[in-house]
Amino acid sequence: MSSAPHTPPPSPSAASSAAAADARYVLTLSCPDGTGIVARITGFLAEIGGWITDAAYHSDTETGRFFTRQEIRADSVAMDLEELRARFGAVAGSLDAETFHVTRLGTGQERRRVVLLVSKEGHCLYELLSRWHSGELGADIPVVIGNHPDLEPVVRLFGLPFRLIRVPADADGKAAAFAEIRAEVERHDPDAIVLARFMQVVPPELCEAWAGKLINIHHGFLPSFRGARPYHQAYARGVKLIGATCHYVSAELDAGPIIDQDVIRVDHGDSPADMVRRGRDIEKAVLARGLTWHLQDRVLIDGLRTIVFA
Amino acid sequence: MSSAPHTPPPSPSAASSAAAADARYVLTLSCPDGTGIVARITGFLAEIGGWITDAAYHSDTETGRFFTRQEIRADSVAMDLEELRARFGAVAGSLDAETFHVTRLGTGQERRRVVLLVSKEGHCLYELLSRWHSGELGADIPVVIGNHPDLEPVVRLFGLPFRLIRVPADADGKAAAFAEIRAEVERHDPDAIVLARFMQVVPPELCEAWAGKLINIHHGFLPSFRGARPYHQAYARGVKLIGATCHYVSAELDAGPIIDQDVIRVDHGDSPADMVRRGRDIEKAVLARGLTWHLQDRVLIDGLRTIVFA
Amino acid sequence: MSSAPHTPPPSPSAASSAAAADARYVLTLSCPDGTGIVARITGFLAEIGGWITDAAYHSDTETGRFFTRQEIRADSVAMDLEELRARFGAVAGSLDAETFHVTRLGTGQERRRVVLLVSKEGHCLYELLSRWHSGELGADIPVVIGNHPDLEPVVRLFGLPFRLIRVPADADGKAAAFAEIRAEVERHDPDAIVLARFMQVVPPELCEAWAGKLINIHHGFLPSFRGARPYHQAYARGVKLIGATCHYVSAELDAGPIIDQDVIRVDHGDSPADMVRRGRDIEKAVLARGLTWHLQDRVLIDGLRTIVFA
Amino acid sequence: MSSAPHTPPPSPSAASSAAAADARYVLTLSCPDGTGIVARITGFLAEIGGWITDAAYHSDTETGRFFTRQEIRADSVAMDLEELRARFGAVAGSLDAETFHVTRLGTGQERRRVVLLVSKEGHCLYELLSRWHSGELGADIPVVIGNHPDLEPVVRLFGLPFRLIRVPADADGKAAAFAEIRAEVERHDPDAIVLARFMQVVPPELCEAWAGKLINIHHGFLPSFRGARPYHQAYARGVKLIGATCHYVSAELDAGPIIDQDVIRVDHGDSPADMVRRGRDIEKAVLARGLTWHLQDRVLIDGLRTIVFA
Repeated sequence: MSSAPHTPPPSPSAASSAAAADARYVLTLSCPDGTGIVARITGFLAEIGGWITDAAYHSDTETGRFFTRQEIRADSVAMDLEELRARFGAVAGSLDAETFHVTRLGTGQERRRVVLLVSKEGHCLYELLSRWHSGELGADIPVVIGNHPDLEPVVRLFGLPFRLIRVPADADGKAAAFAEIRAEVERHDPDAIVLARFMQVVPPELCEAWAGKLINIHHGFLPSFRGARPYHQAYARGVKLIGATCHYVSAELDAGPIIDQDVIRVDHGDSPADMVRRGRDIEKAVLARGLTWHLQDRVLIDGLRTIVFA
Repeated sequence: MSSAPHTPPPSPSAASSAAAADARYVLTLSCPDGTGIVARITGFLAEIGGWITDAAYHSDTETGRFFTRQEIRADSVAMDLEELRARFGAVAGSLDAETFHVTRLGTGQERRRVVLLVSKEGHCLYELLSRWHSGELGADIPVVIGNHPDLEPVVRLFGLPFRLIRVPADADGKAAAFAEIRAEVERHDPDAIVLARFMQVVPPELCEAWAGKLINIHHGFLPSFRGARPYHQAYARGVKLIGATCHYVSAELDAGPIIDQDVIRVDHGDSPADMVRRGRDIEKAVLARGLTWHLQDRVLIDGLRTIVFA
Repeated sequence: MSSAPHTPPPSPSAASSAAAADARYVLTLSCPDGTGIVARITGFLAEIGGWITDAAYHSDTETGRFFTRQEIRADSVAMDLEELRARFGAVAGSLDAETFHVTRLGTGQERRRVVLLVSKEGHCLYELLSRWHSGELGADIPVVIGNHPDLEPVVRLFGLPFRLIRVPADADGKAAAFAEIRAEVERHDPDAIVLARFMQVVPPELCEAWAGKLINIHHGFLPSFRGARPYHQAYARGVKLIGATCHYVSAELDAGPIIDQDVIRVDHGDSPADMVRRGRDIEKAVLARGLTWHLQDRVLIDGLRTIVFA
Repeated sequence: MSSAPHTPPPSPSAASSAAAADARYVLTLSCPDGTGIVARITGFLAEIGGWITDAAYHSDTETGRFFTRQEIRADSVAMDLEELRARFGAVAGSLDAETFHVTRLGTGQERRRVVLLVSKEGHCLYELLSRWHSGELGADIPVVIGNHPDLEPVVRLFGLPFRLIRVPADADGKAAAFAEIRAEVERHDPDAIVLARFMQVVPPELCEAWAGKLINIHHGFLPSFRGARPYHQAYARGVKLIGATCHYVSAELDAGPIIDQDVIRVDHGDSPADMVRRGRDIEKAVLARGLTWHLQDRVLIDGLRTIVFA
């Protein structure tokens, strides 16, 4: 498949594209906390001449774990991704790191890829496609998969491929449909798979296969109002704030690690339909924010919790 | 019992006292929705010469019910509370009203009374006592009941009576203690009974007896995190916002009608202890707001929901 | 000019279109406050059989003025717009009303029209075009005018006409350009003219000609940070919250009546570029909200202030 | 002067006192940015065996300056405050630091001291005295100075000394009064002087003498609405959010470095009096937060901006 149509056209916002063009290495790591860790890591970066453009640390006093994210200018170190990964891996090993990652954020072949899954509600799709088109997303969208044809015109509007895969209600049909979805998703080797108001429960084996890459926007303030029709649940319960939650998907429904949340105030004058309408603004903002952080390796997962170096 | 010590001393904030001195009648009503209701009610008020200082209406499209709150200057109508109640009752009857109330908000004998129940956490108590002392609460506090002696010095500081009633763990002891609490509360005939971080579950029969008057502040964003240690639950779940909820108490724990809620943003750097500390500010603000609305008859209960004419 | 391309294609969000199809009459009025006004207005509506779907009132204690907005089902009254206007005008006259309006919100010929003016920043444009395309805006966009060609591809993407009118720096060129803009705008007889990050100061005579219809989004929390580069001003001043303001344009720069505002928290880690990026989300949300309220006659102007019956 | 009455009585909140009892050294520093700074500082801390309990860094890309705050357990390093200051001073020197500080946060003699200045509005005073009394403030209040007698009863309630110093309108009287205020303040050698709704303009020479220690709460969202009656200004301008600002005082009125701000939403229904009343909650919360951060050396001043390591 040619990658041409998935890269946005020359962006009208030249500035943001220009900023994205500066290649960076991002190094993240989690390890047992202790003394001297920051000294060890910053010492390593000083040693290889790394020009740090963004650095963040977190010592979790509850779990006794340490987390860091370091962003350095790619042109400041005289080595390629493989070598940097190997050398940082040695540091990580000496710290008994549980996880460590090195990524190159940049342009061309290195651009990140996002696959979207949608159903009928379009506001999150418009938001992500607009950000893709303007260059603000900083990633390619090789395909949008829908289980309904409703949003195909929106995807075509932006000149992107739309793939319709209907999901039948019966178990066999469903299994076959998700096998097809899986094949379509995986042939693009995406860095993120986004459920942009996709109204089907993703099977557990896919949640597992895509763990840490599968991102959902839930139109409720989790852990309240899991499952279907959260705004109607919120109305019935009489809450005074409604919310949206961007989270990694795990096998348990609406119970994966939360990346970001936001709320707006409602009152007795807001019907469920008003909540649905007003909630769209926060859903799309929270999803876009969470996805952007994920694509920049700003989110480290720690069990049910996330460390977000925003 | 002499009322002297429960009325705050001449307030340092003369302005707010002066405002409170203007007596008002507050009329509230709920009835099946239909055409001409507002015309009927405002026609009645025009007829008796009522000078409306605050008026609010709500037609609930989901339940088909109508709600209103009217505040008029007491000196604008040539009748006393009993007569006004009778005449408004006739209007209510003609509208098949499910509920209607007429109250006089003012000074002296008419001042509202609030009984507080506390345990060991003092921030909500300081807040309410400060508002009482400054005259901002606009109500008397005839007694504060504690199931621990810890906060007695705070209550004494403000010159108010403190009554210690320990609540044993065994069923009989507990029943006896709550009988004593009930007696102490009811002899003051309060307009509100406030659980200001009172860490005991109130027995169902008291919840019923005090329905619509018993107000709790829950240190979590309900319906998430009901029950004990909500901040620790919130930490474990990894939410990005924590909240507080002021609600009427019903027999089901933390499940009564919500009056007000608020949240603050937290991140991975906030330990459970940080959340406890930071949450105090919203707990006390939400409680003070909800209680004030209740005392001014601004809250109408509609099943699990509230109409708040703030 | 054919109106065909300016009406969005059959919307993917059928529900919102359906809701928009129910025609309504909206009646607004402002007059000196006094007793019996609500009774007079609701009496009139009851008399003509109006089925009220939304009603709001405001008595301003500072200015002594009364404001109301009534929304009724168009099919509930047996008269057309002209007759309703005449009969409501008689009520307005009897109340010494300073302003009164009757509009029909509906479909087809009655759809409202919005003209957009843009420069180079596209986020507000994407937002409004997406809402137009999905049917959520509930209005037509007959043309987008740009003083730079940068955003033409975005407008073409959505199948709408783009008109490039460059604005030279010299006084004569500028006057000629704005004469051309005026002609282009006025031939569409729009209900709203939106400066969607249009980076030119609109001449006073146009502000006057379009008073009450010309809406701007300012990327700062007015009245702070008027004029150019508000985020840089905010950074330099060290504020801890940045904001956006949707307001009617008056001849004095960034000083017209405010329709809506919002803010987000920033800290020392946010550079001016971060503020620009993060501010986009609130700019577009605030603009879309303010424009929607305007198009539904929910905003009444009272000097420098607005009454917003949202 | 005996310190006895200024230290709060044994706190009802034992937990917060216990937490406060763990002595800490806090080291802060600002210097020109460059590579290897974090490595240098963390290397130094590792060398002296410092157990870091909280660490924060900021590289300002606009100004090219670096800022850090390190909090370590006092019992983890085998040296006293003087020696630590000398050794950290050597590190600071090698980094060409513009500022560096070492403080010991703890108990007893080391407790920080706050002097309050008040006029007639009591809500901020109640808030700070409540936090002092509960032990949450973690500092002593040796005296409260008022230019009016109104709040003396509140201060006496909490058992603290109140000093009345009237400020006449004429220049000579004013100068004499502020000389007296200065003497009273300075004999307590405070770490913070707080204008808790003190309604007098502090003379420039005092602003200078107390620079970096003199903290004001302004009841407006600066830089909007400087000077008198900010809520009335906000009402007249028709803003949709009102705010409060905690800032260091400089000679120019309401123009010093901002520590924290917050806002609440208002609408056309809020009169200036409503804004005054509703604004109190955010004023006291923002002031308490800003003061606490200041007392824990979490605020670094950078010209007009502040770095807040909260």
